[in-house]
Amino acid sequence: MSDARRGRLSVVGLGPGSEGLLAPDAAAAFRDADDLIGYFPYVDMAVRLAGPLKATLHASDNRVEMDRARHAFELAASGRKVVVVSSGDPGIFAMATAVIEALHAECEAAGNAADNSSGESCGDFTSNAAGERAATWRAVELVIVPGISAAQAAASRVGAPLGHDFCVLSLSDNLKPWDVIERRLELAASADLVLALYNPISKARPWQLGRAFDLLRRHLPATTPVVLGRDVGRPAERLIVTTLGEVTPAQVDMRTVVIVGSSQTRAFPRGDGSLWVYTPRWYEAAPAGEAGSPDASGDGAAGA
Amino acid sequence: MSDARRGRLSVVGLGPGSEGLLAPDAAAAFRDADDLIGYFPYVDMAVRLAGPLKATLHASDNRVEMDRARHAFELAASGRKVVVVSSGDPGIFAMATAVIEALHAECEAAGNAADNSSGESCGDFTSNAAGERAATWRAVELVIVPGISAAQAAASRVGAPLGHDFCVLSLSDNLKPWDVIERRLELAASADLVLALYNPISKARPWQLGRAFDLLRRHLPATTPVVLGRDVGRPAERLIVTTLGEVTPAQVDMRTVVIVGSSQTRAFPRGDGSLWVYTPRWYEAAPAGEAGSPDASGDGAAGA
Repeated sequence: MSDARRGRLSVVGLGPGSEGLLAPDAAAAFRDADDLIGYFPYVDMAVRLAGPLKATLHASDNRVEMDRARHAFELAASGRKVVVVSSGDPGIFAMATAVIEALHAECEAAGNAADNSSGESCGDFTSNAAGERAATWRAVELVIVPGISAAQAAASRVGAPLGHDFCVLSLSDNLKPWDVIERRLELAASADLVLALYNPISKARPWQLGRAFDLLRRHLPATTPVVLGRDVGRPAERLIVTTLGEVTPAQVDMRTVVIVGSSQTRAFPRGDGSLWVYTPRWYEAAPAGEAGSPDASGDGAAGA
Repeated sequence: MSDARRGRLSVVGLGPGSEGLLAPDAAAAFRDADDLIGYFPYVDMAVRLAGPLKATLHASDNRVEMDRARHAFELAASGRKVVVVSSGDPGIFAMATAVIEALHAECEAAGNAADNSSGESCGDFTSNAAGERAATWRAVELVIVPGISAAQAAASRVGAPLGHDFCVLSLSDNLKPWDVIERRLELAASADLVLALYNPISKARPWQLGRAFDLLRRHLPATTPVVLGRDVGRPAERLIVTTLGEVTPAQVDMRTVVIVGSSQTRAFPRGDGSLWVYTPRWYEAAPAGEAGSPDASGDGAAGA
């Protein structure tokens, strides 16, 4: 395969869904694409936020992530500039994982021994048809453009509930057993971590969120702040600040991200009667000097 | 205070530090600001990414978050457009929390009973000088502009290590006891969550990261992928993919974010000899159909 024909596959995050929070690199990728692949509402959103686009649109239904990923590699391997679009951050419960999984599966299918955790699998291979296909996929320039995820957008609207240690869990038991999810909720609550819950509920998973709330109520006070953020950053944005004692699954749908505070998370009223919610930077006791003098939370960490 | 004099305080994230990943809302806030307040490297970065700026620059040293927050409120309460700048996402171990904490402390200092977890504190207050100051602070339009955080940027460069459930922890024991951090590491590792570690090490905290790695080695195989991302998105970007068995604290500094995989996280070689790292969407066993047919991971969750 000549370099001139080297295709590019970009996995791109829409962010929350407003132009103002769409990364310029994401907008540029959409505009430069020959092909745009994704779940149809996200393809529509890319056109709305960055369009008009020259790309051929390949909008698909949900639940076909691996098909989408393989289709994207096939197009890119033919020399095209392909974008796979995700909402939020493609690296958080979204298409980046499916795309990398597809590439790994192709490498493994090419007959290389799989020692998955050591990086020893998927070496050189060109000796058969499967190997040649894997080689063309691997020659594709693969780029992931991160985005602002739903929990971050919801947090920014209500204050800083994710300002201290937190945990990001998907409540979907489509691809992991429910008992693993319960165990993670138990351990995260025992660790007194703030929780950001993705995929909280759906028609096919009606009871799981109620079980999750019940479980968390055994660890946390009823007054623990809970934030429900639906379509944050989009025209239909809706935010609810409630408590663990009062929240019900009926307030939540699959387009909602749920943030459950830790024992330290606080709420207090704004001027307009709604609430600010934040989790203090300190834990258990305010440090000396917190009330008025310079404190000592930072390290100048450029990584924040 | 008349509406014409209503000031605005925006807490704004720089994202990882490249123009292409700076949200347009963030760039607009920098350009519109009368005053820009922050740790001096972040003020410099805002000027580099969005400048020239008309704002008066108030660059300060690190470890003065609460002073910065109060200064910002005072300026905004006088009717100015003030921006407090953070790297990454201001809501993740950054200035949004300090700003909201400062507001809450001011409300509480105004003499209102503090029932911190129920949102009952900080009601109306104008009966004394402290109350009037709290009222002027609360009248400020307070806006938080989220950003792409360091762990997301690092993840995007190496694949999708955060593609499944994960935990975001600060290793700094400046504001929380070290035993709380150890307990959280233990519980997160027991839950088999991927870990993103912020503030991993500093001159004042030289031994903690080594202890953390030792603790994690008791739960996870030595082959577990570890990603070290330093200055990701900036000119000096450096990425290392190693393993839990091989990583040493000497490879890490305070500008590095550390991602430690779960038992499921995998690595495999790219064409250029470096490694892709990802955490599969499924857990424990690949679902039926994973190898070739449409799978069932998605819910059409717009929240991702």
